[in-house]
Parts: sequence; C-alpha cells; structure tokens
Amino acid sequence: MSVAATAAEIPIGYAEIVAAAERIAPYVHRTPVMTSRTLDERCGGTVFLKCENFQKVGAFKFRGAVNALLQLDEKSRRAGVVTHSSGNHAQALALAGRLLGVPVTVVMPRTAPAVKRQATEGYGARVVPCEPTLASREATVADEIERHGLSLVHPFNDWNVIAGQGTAALELLDQAGPLDMIVCPTGGGGLLSGTALAVAGRSPETRVVGAEPARADDARRSLETGSIQPSNDPQTIADGLRTSLGPYTFAVISRQVDRIVTATEPEVLDAMRFIWERVKIVLEPSSAVPVATLWNGQLDVKGLRVGVILSGGNVDLEPLFQALAGRIG
Amino acid sequence: MSVAATAAEIPIGYAEIVAAAERIAPYVHRTPVMTSRTLDERCGGTVFLKCENFQKVGAFKFRGAVNALLQLDEKSRRAGVVTHSSGNHAQALALAGRLLGVPVTVVMPRTAPAVKRQATEGYGARVVPCEPTLASREATVADEIERHGLSLVHPFNDWNVIAGQGTAALELLDQAGPLDMIVCPTGGGGLLSGTALAVAGRSPETRVVGAEPARADDARRSLETGSIQPSNDPQTIADGLRTSLGPYTFAVISRQVDRIVTATEPEVLDAMRFIWERVKIVLEPSSAVPVATLWNGQLDVKGLRVGVILSGGNVDLEPLFQALAGRIG
Repeated sequence: MSVAATAAEIPIGYAEIVAAAERIAPYVHRTPVMTSRTLDERCGGTVFLKCENFQKVGAFKFRGAVNALLQLDEKSRRAGVVTHSSGNHAQALALAGRLLGVPVTVVMPRTAPAVKRQATEGYGARVVPCEPTLASREATVADEIERHGLSLVHPFNDWNVIAGQGTAALELLDQAGPLDMIVCPTGGGGLLSGTALAVAGRSPETRVVGAEPARADDARRSLETGSIQPSNDPQTIADGLRTSLGPYTFAVISRQVDRIVTATEPEVLDAMRFIWERVKIVLEPSSAVPVATLWNGQLDVKGLRVGVILSGGNVDLEPLFQALAGRIG
Repeated sequence: MSVAATAAEIPIGYAEIVAAAERIAPYVHRTPVMTSRTLDERCGGTVFLKCENFQKVGAFKFRGAVNALLQLDEKSRRAGVVTHSSGNHAQALALAGRLLGVPVTVVMPRTAPAVKRQATEGYGARVVPCEPTLASREATVADEIERHGLSLVHPFNDWNVIAGQGTAALELLDQAGPLDMIVCPTGGGGLLSGTALAVAGRSPETRVVGAEPARADDARRSLETGSIQPSNDPQTIADGLRTSLGPYTFAVISRQVDRIVTATEPEVLDAMRFIWERVKIVLEPSSAVPVATLWNGQLDVKGLRVGVILSGGNVDLEPLFQALAGRIG
C-alpha cells in the first residue's frame, strides 16, 4: 500500500461542497434531471439522470474550474493559472478564466486534435504544446509556473476542483429526492470524490459507486490493491476516463466509495446509443459508462432509487454530419 | 383559387385546443423549454426552444394522435383506426393506440425503411404495405376502412389531430411568457395550424410563422397563389416536411399565418449541427429548419421574444455509431 496515498489528509468535507455550491451558483447552470421509463423497466430501479452534458462547455468540469479560480487571491488571479488537459477540463478552465478575468494557459500534447486546441483558444486561453509524454507535460507545466508565476489548477488532484465537482451531486439530491445510490463515471476521480464528500454529509445512507471502462479499470484495481494503479494509455472509446487516480482522489475514494463497476466497450456504445435514440440527448461515451452498468445489470439496482451523473456531451459529430451532407447532394 | 380550399370551414378554435390540452394531459409529456445564449447572440432575439423531441415517440405527433383517439366513440374505438405514414405519425398513433386500447393499422409504402416498420410494429400496430404511389396508398386505406370498419386518423388533415398539435404552443406560452412570434416547421401543416389556432385565442398579438425547406416550399407557394400547391417528392433532408398542405390546414394557414420562410439544405444541416453540438439535444432535420431561418437571418427577430417548436428528434444514428464502433476495434 502506497504511503503517499493512504497518508493523504482529506482537508475538505461537506461544508466545503456547500460553500462551493454557493460560490459558483452565479456562473454555472443548474442542470435538469431526466428520467427514462425504458431504462427503469430494464434495470428495475428508478433512475435519475443528472444532465451535466447541458452544463457550460458541455461538462461538469466547469464547476470545479470556476470554484478553483474563485478561491485564488488577487495576486494569483492577476498572474493567471495553468493546467494540462486536452479534454473537457481545458475548455472548462478556459471559459471560467474568461468569465472571471483570469489568464489561462493550457499545456496540451501536440498530438491533440486541432478541434480541441481551437475550442480552448476560442475561449481565450493560451495553449502551449508539449510532447505526448508525462515527462514533457510535467516539464512544460513546471516551466510555465516558474517563468510566469502561474498557479496550477490540476484537472482532478486539487481540493477546490474536487469541491466544485461535488456540487452536481448536491443539486441532484435536491432535485430527485432521497437516493439509494449515485453512480459516477470515473477517470481521475474528481467527480467521484466530490460526489462522495457531498453524499457523506447530505445523505450518508446513499451508496456512491464509480463506473469505468473495463479496458481502463485502474480505479477498480486501485481499490482492490490499496494503492494507486497506473492507467497505461488504455484504448477505450470513453476518452474522458483514461486517466488514473491521483493521491487526493484515491484518498477519498478508498475510504468513501462503495465499489467500482465496469462496462465493456460494446456495452458502452449500446448504452450511449440508447440515450441518444430514446432520451434524445447528446452524451459523450464517458457518460454512457454508468448507464451501461445499469443497462446490463453489472450493478443490481432493483427496487432502488439511483442517481447517475451524466458527465458531459462533447463528442465528435463529424461522421454523422458527413453522412447527412452526403444525402443533400 | 381552389374552391375546396377557401370554402373549408374551420370548425375548431381556441376552446378546442384548450379542451384537447386537458384531455391529453394524462398521456403526454409536458416537454421542457430550452434556451441558447449563442443562438440569441447570433439572431439578436430571445429564443425559446420547445423541445417536442422529448415528447413520447420523440415527436409532437403524439399529441394529435392521442387527442384523435380520445374523441372516438366506443364502437369506433373497438373497431380501430387506420392511417398512412412512414414517419413520426405512424409511431405516434401506434403508441397512442396501445396506451388507449385502440387497434391501429398503418398503411406504409413497401419502400419505407425496415426500421420504421419495425418501430411501428414494436408499438403493437398492424402495418399494411402499399405501393409507393398516392393511388395505391389511398386504395389500400379505403380497402382497410371498408373491410374492417376502421376510422381514418389522417396525419394532419383532421381537426382533432390539429387541435392536439396546438397544445404544444399553449404550453410554450405558459412556460416562456409573452412571445412576439412563434415559428413552426411546416410539412402537412398540422402543427402550424394548431399553433395558429392556439395563438389566436391565447395571444393574438403573437405572429405565427411557418418554416420549410427551400426545396419543399409548397406552403409558401400555396399562400402566394391562394391554392394548395403540390409537393412533388422534393429531395430534402428534412424528410418530415415533404408533404403538401391539406384543405383543412390550408384553410387555417391562409387566414391566420403571418408568413412562410425557407432555408436551404446546407443551412438546415448547419443549424442542426449547432443544436447538437451546443444545446446537446438530438434533433431531426425537420426541426432544424426554423432554427436555420433564425440562424441565417431570413427571419429578422432582433429585439423579439421568439418561440420555436422543435418538432422531433427521430434521426438515423447508424452512421455515427458505425464510426464509433470502428474505433473500439
């Protein structure tokens, strides 16, 4: 068992999640909760889908980004922040920075899709390319911090970010009423950690479960082995869930999360298609992972009231619109 | 000017729409209204999107189908109903029949996609194939009526159907508050007619505008010429809007609709992509037509409060999921 992991203190709790919710309220959407009779009939439970795909930038990540920026002191705000991401956190921090007047730098691998870079720059962030290795990423971030005096806003291993992510679960409990269980997609574990802290204070009888792709089951293995297991570039369609846990998120998850369940790639795609076709919302593959675990019974929720946090809706629609454009001739 | 068209009496009005809303309330979803800051900034108005893509069977058509079936006398209910459709009306009537215990027969061209037939049969309807010609369709429907004593529930040229469709606009006005304009996609004109009748009674200062594909601009031409213009198998991606008006819908539209605007095929696709990517909801091309007229300024709505009825969300997702399945290897 890794000393670093188990020794990590957990300096925040329910009070910090509530404070974060109040702090970010003027900036974030209170996203709706949807239901599906088809899903309920299939899994035997009553499922409440918290639609963070409707959040600003199309992902829950905006909550943590706003909370982190609002906690900077004046000097740090003026100097600006840096992060590393080619995903939703990059855009979330970029937009949060624009809205709050904080300069944002995003270190992004050269290999990231041009559309990701453009979207991040479109929100006014400065993008600094790095090589697609951990060493290059860390060196580039360190260099930016040293040269420009920037503050790091890590995508998930940051208590302010974790507190912000936990606000989605608070809203869900307000909107859906008592829940027996909440299931979250699990990559770096920020959403799952924030949810666990929120639930522990508001509704301790609610079990918190993480869901991850079977091909990227590092969180499950980390809980089983008691130390953070690496995630070695797993090939999963759920590209938001490829990351391994960090010391902070492992500390919370190993103590407060009931279990981690997994779904195979075809199961994830089937669940995603079900949501698109029947619930009529645009969901990214990562968000379909918890739905898949309900749809296929990995998670037995018969007779239970279950919340699912649909983490985001950012997906490449080019193949669909290419096909449609082909039809208009 | 066609005598049949202009002579058509309009036997329903606001009271019938209100009665329809009460009648169907236990069966239909009260769909949400969404907004988009990006859309508002682009068109200069304040736009309220009435999300009938979230309606049962994914389309407003369910409203009219339920209202029509609830108005049958006991004998007609037992005998059952027939319609012709390969689109949303087929599934809407099939589900309405299943929920209300009314046998449903749908006459559908042999050339309709298998998925449409399966979906309709999946809701328990009997599908009777016909040749893909108007003559065959009408003969097949007439034969079903004669042999089985069925009642026809026309997709749009039916006052009970029109009254049911008008209930979406009533809800929209309740949800959004006062509106300067409501824009509806326009195919056979059932939604546009019902909306016009609802608005005339509830909010006579609100202008009602129809939107159709430039390639299927028969409603526009019908208003200009003063008689129903045919729609000759137009090649538009907005497959729900290929139909021409009927005598009933023409009677309402020619008297109570402000104007008809059109959008080109690329404009429709662009608007649809904007909605999917930014509003994160699944919309069919027909529903993107009114959005396109706002997005591209055919309809000047600067400073106005504008409602748009997003009519449905049934679209073939196979190309997208084929592309995604290719990625999971």
